[in-house]
Amino acid sequence: MSVDLPPSQASSQLIPDWLQRCAENRPQHLAVQSGAVRWSFAELAQQAMRLAEQLAALGVTSGSRVALLAANSPAFVACVHALTRLRAILVPLNTRLSEAELSWQLQDARVSLLLSDAGQAARAERLASNLAPLTHACLRLQPNGSIELDPAPQQGPPAAFTPVLLIDLNAVQAIMYTSGTTGEPKGVLITYGMHWWNAVSSALNLGHHLDDCWLACLPFFHIGGLTIIMRSVIYGITINVHEKFDPLAINRSIFSEGVTIISVVAVMLQRMLEALEQEHPGERYPGHLRCVLLGGGPAPRPLLEACAARGIPVVQTYGLTEACSQAATLSPAEALRKLGSAGRPLPAVQLEIRQDGRRAAPGEAGMIYLKGPTITPGYANRPEATREALQDGWLATGDIGYLDEEGYLYVLDRRSDLIISGGENIYPAEIEAALLSHPAVAEAGVCGQPDPQWGQVPIAFVRLHPDQTTSAEELLAHLQTRLARYKLPRAIHFVAELPRNSSGKLLRRQLPSLLNHAVD
Amino acid sequence: MSVDLPPSQASSQLIPDWLQRCAENRPQHLAVQSGAVRWSFAELAQQAMRLAEQLAALGVTSGSRVALLAANSPAFVACVHALTRLRAILVPLNTRLSEAELSWQLQDARVSLLLSDAGQAARAERLASNLAPLTHACLRLQPNGSIELDPAPQQGPPAAFTPVLLIDLNAVQAIMYTSGTTGEPKGVLITYGMHWWNAVSSALNLGHHLDDCWLACLPFFHIGGLTIIMRSVIYGITINVHEKFDPLAINRSIFSEGVTIISVVAVMLQRMLEALEQEHPGERYPGHLRCVLLGGGPAPRPLLEACAARGIPVVQTYGLTEACSQAATLSPAEALRKLGSAGRPLPAVQLEIRQDGRRAAPGEAGMIYLKGPTITPGYANRPEATREALQDGWLATGDIGYLDEEGYLYVLDRRSDLIISGGENIYPAEIEAALLSHPAVAEAGVCGQPDPQWGQVPIAFVRLHPDQTTSAEELLAHLQTRLARYKLPRAIHFVAELPRNSSGKLLRRQLPSLLNHAVD
Repeated sequence: MSVDLPPSQASSQLIPDWLQRCAENRPQHLAVQSGAVRWSFAELAQQAMRLAEQLAALGVTSGSRVALLAANSPAFVACVHALTRLRAILVPLNTRLSEAELSWQLQDARVSLLLSDAGQAARAERLASNLAPLTHACLRLQPNGSIELDPAPQQGPPAAFTPVLLIDLNAVQAIMYTSGTTGEPKGVLITYGMHWWNAVSSALNLGHHLDDCWLACLPFFHIGGLTIIMRSVIYGITINVHEKFDPLAINRSIFSEGVTIISVVAVMLQRMLEALEQEHPGERYPGHLRCVLLGGGPAPRPLLEACAARGIPVVQTYGLTEACSQAATLSPAEALRKLGSAGRPLPAVQLEIRQDGRRAAPGEAGMIYLKGPTITPGYANRPEATREALQDGWLATGDIGYLDEEGYLYVLDRRSDLIISGGENIYPAEIEAALLSHPAVAEAGVCGQPDPQWGQVPIAFVRLHPDQTTSAEELLAHLQTRLARYKLPRAIHFVAELPRNSSGKLLRRQLPSLLNHAVD
Repeated sequence: MSVDLPPSQASSQLIPDWLQRCAENRPQHLAVQSGAVRWSFAELAQQAMRLAEQLAALGVTSGSRVALLAANSPAFVACVHALTRLRAILVPLNTRLSEAELSWQLQDARVSLLLSDAGQAARAERLASNLAPLTHACLRLQPNGSIELDPAPQQGPPAAFTPVLLIDLNAVQAIMYTSGTTGEPKGVLITYGMHWWNAVSSALNLGHHLDDCWLACLPFFHIGGLTIIMRSVIYGITINVHEKFDPLAINRSIFSEGVTIISVVAVMLQRMLEALEQEHPGERYPGHLRCVLLGGGPAPRPLLEACAARGIPVVQTYGLTEACSQAATLSPAEALRKLGSAGRPLPAVQLEIRQDGRRAAPGEAGMIYLKGPTITPGYANRPEATREALQDGWLATGDIGYLDEEGYLYVLDRRSDLIISGGENIYPAEIEAALLSHPAVAEAGVCGQPDPQWGQVPIAFVRLHPDQTTSAEELLAHLQTRLARYKLPRAIHFVAELPRNSSGKLLRRQLPSLLNHAVD
């Protein structure tokens, strides 16, 4: 159960299964809504149990790692809970990744079964056939409303199959990939305890109303989406599932489906406001929308002002996969007074800024450290990376920030060089590695460039080998097979030299100044 | 820190101090209101810190046991938090107990300092002088609003004094006395983790609104009152403190001080309704009163019907000290459909009915067992009683009940023979032991008798030694020095024989049938 956990945390702490309790306490309450699909908690529990039986028949058991390559859907929600019933570990895959990237994660996580939705079935089939004995099955929502695996299991679940209806807070629920400064993705261990403490801390912070309805348009394969699935059953509230980000559809849900909380990134909120203005000029969101949780990097001032003018309760947050989403939040009342701040740490979270091995003074920048029960116990199969990131329970986030005199966090730089584009994390080192795999490229540097729509987009700087020649188009074609589309540099500039410090380390923050000297 | 805890639970789990976080997150928010006294969280944190310094100067340190003999007041609240800052252990004393009972608890808990309010100062002084080296100090609220110890410490806090601003969930916060079937009070260990999990479970169940205000008229020396102090800082909400139960004053607070939640027992709610009817005939409580948490035994149907007719949202609950108050609750929507039920277990709590060593079927009565992080790790200095009550983490409550087909709990009997009178627990064995200490008494049996005002009152049955004679008045006088007034039998009946089973065990439930045969 508690795979990969350091021994000190390996003891079990059992509490009643969240979904099961919801099915007992409020069986008829709406659990999942997605378009015409409406499942009560009793129905969701049945779906999860039926799916768990099918997965058990395929050999999934306690500790199995099961990857899921799918867009948001009710079936995704049921699948997450089905795996909990088996004590299997979910490996959610980013549908935007290239097959090369997906293949790497499937191997690294030692996945034995790859599930997909219909839209990803062809890719999943190719991936599985290249990685035998990995098998693939597709989740299909039948016209009668039930979820069936395709191909269907040839037999029923083993005789010994009994669903797990106690949750071990120290057990791993998911392995979720995130890249580091090295460019190599690492599987963050997400435990049930992290979900529990994050959900509870978030509720203490934002309030918990029994009629809440949380809209999920962030992908479930990111921590900001996955946590909504867990909160829904920890709180016993409705999750309103959107397969993709369509601002018109989302606004319709907000107006007519009782949405009270929504998690977004800045570019989404911007487009929702534009759509609102187009469809209902001058109109406000209904009063029941009590919280717009805004993550994925700092929000531009004009957007916050537009929200304030329309009475939209924006809660800015600083989160990361290793902290199971939110680690600090800023209340709507302070959105403008503390503009640019990510607010104060969640109830159970300790936050420190450290500079030169000591706690930084107010106003002094340093690395952000986090500690508490919402923080990951480490990375899957990466003891060294775990030791490096976690010392004495403190997570070195790699992000740079400072606390003001009142203890409000200001994040200056995400992981030194992290580029956040439309809420997706892009790690320069990963793009640089892909560029360097082209024979003509001698050096490569990638940084973010401000973008009015996406916040940031990546741009690349390349020095070629003296005797080589290539074009930006050729390099882009080279990258396309290796990287997700959203990671492709918006521009590739050819330069004679990259800025490096005395020890040869690439100075990515100086890259933009090269734009005056680029030879293209 | 983790005194008396079984080794398996002795590891520490640290989270940021609750009050300190409130003082940082919402410094100006009203923390405590009691008549004209209004403290913000910043002020409450200052009061607690100043008091902690004074207590440190008196030698209170980590692990010290400090008793508090006082009525509800803001000073009580500050004192609880001051002890947290010192990692000292609170021993809250029931002000209604006799000096003999108090003296016993002070010794059993190994208390080194006895604090009191002005009203209890004379008794506390006597108790301390009889139990040297126990010392006594009185908490006095000064006209300038600060709390001073009397006598004042002769010196400042020790140089090494640093307040504790991390809470160890496994550390003991309080030792709270409750009697068992044996009649000898046992000190229940209440950890910070029990408070945390109970508060969080309660919030998940009842909702958590950022503008909540919880009225405390239950005494803080009972678990139902103490938990309100902790919830106030875990939630960051206002606690409205009432020194005593005055239905007119409480109704005024509800109407004019924004009370949203109140904890009561049936007799209190009854008197509040009568006062409401007297002052404002036909009027309802304001809509902001969203939860009336009703504990202390089953509620009479006419009371529940009167509440339903007036739209009062009554949440019935089954709680006990060992479970840090609520263990199961019934939502207002089901108050009448499930009349007499205490509802369903809290989110983190497992509940089982066992009969003859196996799980009882629905509808079958048996002993109520509880398990989970809200359950006590045991009794102070009572390894044997702890082993008896707690097996494999399951608490044998001693209470009898059953679950219906839908899993709703019905409590039939509290701890076999427990009498609940106006919300106070009365243990027959304790009164019997006091009766038997009179030289004329050969046998004694005590049971509850229905009472329209208090729910139940104790009555006693006594068999005298053949050669002895005494009167009910003389026995009552004998009891008065040994027992709290509320425990005194309403009637003492002299009988020729007490009902016993074949092994000689007193059959208390057959006592009422003796009323036809009593010789008085």
